[in-house]
Formats: sequence, C-alpha cells, structure tokens
Amino acid sequence: MSRLFNESDSQVLADIIRLRRDVRGNRFNDNPVSDADIDTLLNAAMQAPSVGYSQPWQFVVIRDSSVKQAVQQTFIEANATGSMQFTGDKRAQYDALKLEGILEAPVNLAVFYQPSETAVLGQTSMPEMGKFSVVCAIQNLWLMARSLNIGVGWVSILDPLKVKKALNAPESAELIGYLCIGYVDEFLAEPELKQKGWQQTKSATEVIFKDRFS
Amino acid sequence: MSRLFNESDSQVLADIIRLRRDVRGNRFNDNPVSDADIDTLLNAAMQAPSVGYSQPWQFVVIRDSSVKQAVQQTFIEANATGSMQFTGDKRAQYDALKLEGILEAPVNLAVFYQPSETAVLGQTSMPEMGKFSVVCAIQNLWLMARSLNIGVGWVSILDPLKVKKALNAPESAELIGYLCIGYVDEFLAEPELKQKGWQQTKSATEVIFKDRFS
Repeated sequence: MSRLFNESDSQVLADIIRLRRDVRGNRFNDNPVSDADIDTLLNAAMQAPSVGYSQPWQFVVIRDSSVKQAVQQTFIEANATGSMQFTGDKRAQYDALKLEGILEAPVNLAVFYQPSETAVLGQTSMPEMGKFSVVCAIQNLWLMARSLNIGVGWVSILDPLKVKKALNAPESAELIGYLCIGYVDEFLAEPELKQKGWQQTKSATEVIFKDRFS
Repeated sequence: MSRLFNESDSQVLADIIRLRRDVRGNRFNDNPVSDADIDTLLNAAMQAPSVGYSQPWQFVVIRDSSVKQAVQQTFIEANATGSMQFTGDKRAQYDALKLEGILEAPVNLAVFYQPSETAVLGQTSMPEMGKFSVVCAIQNLWLMARSLNIGVGWVSILDPLKVKKALNAPESAELIGYLCIGYVDEFLAEPELKQKGWQQTKSATEVIFKDRFS
C-alpha cells in the first residue's frame, strides 16, 4: 500500500508554498551552502515529473566567481534593455529594484534543457513539454530550498546565449533558468513586487473558470 | 522574523516529492473530488512564483462530460500520430500504455498562459518566462494533490488548438497543461515508465556539472 499523507503533512506543504519567496542579492547572508545542501536540492529537482520520463535536465553548480562575473555582465546589459520597455514612474521604479543576486549568492545554478535526439513519449504534439519538465524540476528545488530555509532567486534578465558561452554549454542545450542560492536572514512576508506596489495579487475569480471560458 | 522550517518539515516535503506520480486513467477511483479540494489545489497553484509577479495563469475546472469527450477525441487523434514516431518493439510498447484518464478522472483541469498586453518585468530577455511561471503553478498543484492523496496525470498528447476550441478559449490564451485529477487506491512505488522499462533513471553524474560544462 502506498503512503498516505495526513492533514498535518499537507499543511506543512501549504506553508512552504505560501512562504516561498524570490530572493534578491540584497538578502543573502554569508552562511556557506554546503555540497550536501546542493545535493539535497538537486535530488528534489531530479524527482520532478518529466514527459515520457525523459529527465531532460542538466544542472551547472557555479561557485567560480569568474563565471558569476561573466553572467552578471549579461544581466547588466539585458537589464538596461529591459528597463527601456517601461516609461515614466514605472521605469524609475524598475531602476530602483534590485533584480538579481549573482555575485552575492554563494552558489549559482544554471538549469538547462537538453533535447532528446529521438522521439519522446508525450512530446509529439506539444514540443515544449521537455522544457516544461525542466521547469517542474526548478519548482521542486525551490520548495525544497525554502524548507531548508535557503533562499532562491530566479534571474531571467539575461541573454541565454551569453550565459551558454560563459558556461561552455553545448549548442544543443537550452537555458531554462538561472538561480541564485544562499541562506538568508529573513524571508519577506509577501512577494516584494506586491509589497512595493508593482503588481497586485489577482483574485481567484479573475483566473478560474468552470467547464469552459465564459 | 520569518518562519523557519525544521528537519521534519523538510522530510515531509522530500517524501511528497519522492512519492508524487503521474496517474493514468486506469488508477482513478470513484471517490468524489470536492470543490473544496479543488480550491486547495488552485490556491497552491496561485502561490507559485511568477515572472514580475505577473500571475499569467488561467484555470478551467472541467466536470462536464461533453467537454471531456471533446478533449478525449483530440487525444485519440494525437496519440495515433504520436505512436507513429516509434518503431518496432517500442511502438508496440507505446500502444500498450494507458496514457490518459480524461473520462475516468472526476475532474479535468486545463491550465492556460494568458500573455500580458504590456511589458513584464523579467520577461524582456526570455519571453518564455511567462509560460514557465504557469508550469511552476502546475507543479505546486501536483505536489499539493499528492499531499492530499489525490492523483494527477498530465496529458500532453493533445492538439492544443482543439482543446482551446472545446473550451471556447480566447485566441490569446495558450494551453500549457491538461490535468486529470481524482482520488486513487494506490500510488505506484516508482514511475510507471521506469517500472515498465520504457526509460531508465538518469544518474546524477550524467546531469550535474561543476562551474561549467566539461
């Protein structure tokens, strides 16, 4: 018989989900993240669902500061371009936000999708399913990190090709996520972009439909 | 001070992650899934990380059998096409697998990505980030379901445009995942595709690199 979880287990998960945060560079502290910590995180990631059990993920654990610096350089360029998509007060607010913690985080983790050379069960009609499997792995890792009181920030303001170059990645590998990982003194009570008024929380009625779109 | 989780909490999450399964139609039982259950699942989904706090998800909770039947019809077509991508023994094995539970599951859930009409913070260099946020929501939901001993199966052998038509979805919405949800008598000890020898488990050394690709 398979294990049944109880209400207390379910509540623990609900709390981890509710209290998980995206952590920026101004919040990491100096406590070292051990290789054992990283193994625990990657073990959670590798147990994610994957289309056709293809496990199409690759993880690069980065502690080398020269690699971090190269990635931070692409953040700086991409962030300047990103800022220009906003105008007026919104751009001023954008420019005041700290949006990455590449150098501050003791560990960076680049997560790639490695496409299969042969057909993948379940991916024949929806080719993006392989990438989505890699995202499931990242979310597993993020929740596991929060349960260990380790902060994770996902940096997406990057040129993926420049990140690949910095990591000597094969042509075929596709960057899915770039994570900054480290211990923190505190997790914010609410998402930072909500607290700062960048974006409101959507209500359930805005996003949930019954049987079909109305 | 933010909540610190302890070793026991972390172990609960590790167990949920390890024991989560993709559930096919031959495993759902007749226990009803309540609206309260669905609310718990969607609440977990809506607390997922999202790029720029954009929350770009839409959920369609399907109990109507005519909608399920229309979706199952596109599965049948897409599965016939999918099967043809495999040859010999592999095709025979493919054809023997039960790959969906659309009609057997009491609830189906279609999950969409609704692109923003304006720029999204964090999505200016990696446009797929919005879709990835929706996948994070699905993974939150999947883990929460397992903690409630509810099975979830992700069906990706579908023509997304036909699913959109069946659900009267707006042009702009993009199907990310179609989930079959219901109570089960048992969760398999291991992923079914592993048990049946379709695909082996990858080792850590195959997929983890230090600092850069070697």
